[in-house]
Amino acid sequence: MDTLATAAARAADVLWKDRFAQRALGATSSAIRELLKFTERPDIISFAGGLPAAETFPMAELEAACQRVLEKQGASAMQYSTTEGYPPLRELLVAQMARYGIKVGIENVLITSGAQQALDLIGRLLINPGDEVLTEEPTFLGAIQAFTACQARFLGVPADHEGMRVDLVERALRAGPKFLYVLPNFQNPSGVTLSLERRERLVELASHYGVPIVEDDPYGQLRYEGTHLPPLVKVDATFHGFANGERAFRGDVLYLGTLSKVLGPGLRVGWVVAPEEVVRKLVQLKQGADLHTSTFTQMVAYETARDGFLVRHVPAIRAIYRERRDAMLAALERHAPEEVRWTRPQGGLFLWLTLPEGTDAGVVLKDALREKVAFVPGTSFFPSGGGENTLRLNFSFCAPPLIEEGIRRLGGVLRRHVGARPSRAR
Amino acid sequence: MDTLATAAARAADVLWKDRFAQRALGATSSAIRELLKFTERPDIISFAGGLPAAETFPMAELEAACQRVLEKQGASAMQYSTTEGYPPLRELLVAQMARYGIKVGIENVLITSGAQQALDLIGRLLINPGDEVLTEEPTFLGAIQAFTACQARFLGVPADHEGMRVDLVERALRAGPKFLYVLPNFQNPSGVTLSLERRERLVELASHYGVPIVEDDPYGQLRYEGTHLPPLVKVDATFHGFANGERAFRGDVLYLGTLSKVLGPGLRVGWVVAPEEVVRKLVQLKQGADLHTSTFTQMVAYETARDGFLVRHVPAIRAIYRERRDAMLAALERHAPEEVRWTRPQGGLFLWLTLPEGTDAGVVLKDALREKVAFVPGTSFFPSGGGENTLRLNFSFCAPPLIEEGIRRLGGVLRRHVGARPSRAR
Repeated sequence: MDTLATAAARAADVLWKDRFAQRALGATSSAIRELLKFTERPDIISFAGGLPAAETFPMAELEAACQRVLEKQGASAMQYSTTEGYPPLRELLVAQMARYGIKVGIENVLITSGAQQALDLIGRLLINPGDEVLTEEPTFLGAIQAFTACQARFLGVPADHEGMRVDLVERALRAGPKFLYVLPNFQNPSGVTLSLERRERLVELASHYGVPIVEDDPYGQLRYEGTHLPPLVKVDATFHGFANGERAFRGDVLYLGTLSKVLGPGLRVGWVVAPEEVVRKLVQLKQGADLHTSTFTQMVAYETARDGFLVRHVPAIRAIYRERRDAMLAALERHAPEEVRWTRPQGGLFLWLTLPEGTDAGVVLKDALREKVAFVPGTSFFPSGGGENTLRLNFSFCAPPLIEEGIRRLGGVLRRHVGARPSRAR
Repeated sequence: MDTLATAAARAADVLWKDRFAQRALGATSSAIRELLKFTERPDIISFAGGLPAAETFPMAELEAACQRVLEKQGASAMQYSTTEGYPPLRELLVAQMARYGIKVGIENVLITSGAQQALDLIGRLLINPGDEVLTEEPTFLGAIQAFTACQARFLGVPADHEGMRVDLVERALRAGPKFLYVLPNFQNPSGVTLSLERRERLVELASHYGVPIVEDDPYGQLRYEGTHLPPLVKVDATFHGFANGERAFRGDVLYLGTLSKVLGPGLRVGWVVAPEEVVRKLVQLKQGADLHTSTFTQMVAYETARDGFLVRHVPAIRAIYRERRDAMLAALERHAPEEVRWTRPQGGLFLWLTLPEGTDAGVVLKDALREKVAFVPGTSFFPSGGGENTLRLNFSFCAPPLIEEGIRRLGGVLRRHVGARPSRAR
């Protein structure tokens, strides 16, 4: 009678038999579930999610775009379409990336159902069970989930205020990882940015050891101060001497982008840039995975973003998030105990707290929830364990007054925990 | 310099090293590519695709729904949402299925990015490399693709005018397949429907041998004549004695549905019905695969379909397709050589031609394209080989006059090939 449930349980045991994989999947799934629960409870000030602010969604433009699409191209928008994606949207993304120094053709761009799907397809293409993936530690939860489902093992390299410790990467590269996954701009979860010097060194090392790089760049346009740094895909092209546009794109870096942070994640439109022969393989996998990304959302995204709209819109998003980041940093200065350290991100959506050694952010969270404030304990972002005394705060979703109030509450909770540690002399 | 391409090629070799799998993937991918090319060429009358008619898309209702969603719930529609899917849509689907005798709760329903994603997630949950999947032969191309990516082997059971030959199923079940994949209503590609007697016997046998059933039902509502037959998931519940709604759903059948054929495939909204513990596992996999299906398209689908709209709309779709099916059957009577046999589907989008033994539908296609008419050769739907003298015709996309003209052209081509076979005495 419960044939199916038994079969599913049995298959899952085999599928996730790898100890590392099982650990990571268990951890991430429960963590995501918890944080989604927090963000849904209206009485809680949540710094747990990774949600863009609703104020940044260009509702009037989206409405007008929907109307245009349905009136002029409704039959196409509701119909099946090709797996590669809506050609005008791919052209638009090619032009957008060119402004950031990424020179590729439409044949190098595959539209995905959010950048999450790009991680999934790349994992399925490159990872065989037991393969190692080199990541920053901590790293993005969604990548842990996607690669874990392919039974990857994680090889973590610690990060500091300049991002991944490239001085430690070489030894890890010698271990023969399948690829290097890195989020160089305002990393999720830490908020740190990989310095230019390290970008250059990382590309050089990866090339030397023949390890491809997967560059995840959801926040690249959301910089609130400092100078834009070239993406690894551009650094790689320069390194190989074909950044001048005369040659077709054929680097060792897969670049992932998304419209989730500049239009809205509800559309589920992301993309991956890859050499043409790799795009072809990803297309094969995507055909079996979901045939194609919604024709309608692709067309709405294109109709909204065209004619330079994003060039005008993104600065408005930056202004909102810059104010929120500043509000959170100022509130932390006021309310956090002096033993607590945090990153000062130049962009993105997150910052990262380090509590004194021995403090368990999971225990802090339980107390914090009683005070109606939420965050994600750092352990969720360490696929091989660690990070017990760290936590992630999102500053994009709440307006400044809520940020002030939430950090005030969190500060009180933290003071109790930091002060209560019996092993620490003050 | 081509580290990534080499790694991808190498990984793909390992991933698809299975001979069966490689064969199927090669065949299906090139076939899909070809047929998408045909459907894009405006001078060709294409019976190759599986496209719904644009005339069936309820454009006015979709436009009104979009406007309501964006005006009243715009911030939610553009935001991240939970992996399980938009609760009102899941409730609506629960109510819709109840009218067809499928009594489940919202906890049994997972929204997927088209039913194709449900096939992918089920494959990833249940199939370990080398596992066998029992299917009708021929079977749905998208299922071949999804299961092949999981390195499944296919165990095919022939079908006749009453669907899968259940008298041959028992031996196949003894071989220990991981699950049985079946499309009981107006099957794609053959157009045949599994009889009630066979449904009952199939459920009994699968239960006896402890093999779960994956029931794919994209066309169930599109019946143009005859009596609606209970889905396998209902037959299974009756067999286990808990169809009365007093017990929670806990059968051995996963049921797949889609809005692609009643609203529009461009929305990419499908769903899977499963026991709650299986839904939980599928949700874990979907989190890593694409996080969730577009919030916006889910809300638009709900706003369009609510208040009984589909009950009013589906009969209009049936009327359009019934006319086209009849037009194609009549045209075949007029133009096809007498040696050719075809199915007479009671619903769905496709019918299936069998040419005399020794005629190669692939060769016929090349000639047909010169006459500007297209179809899909049957071999694409046989994952383990065979079907060279068969082909699939779609009757939903073209209006009746085009159907008449296309079949007239095809009839001419067929006459040349059938007549030209030197081995046949006439």
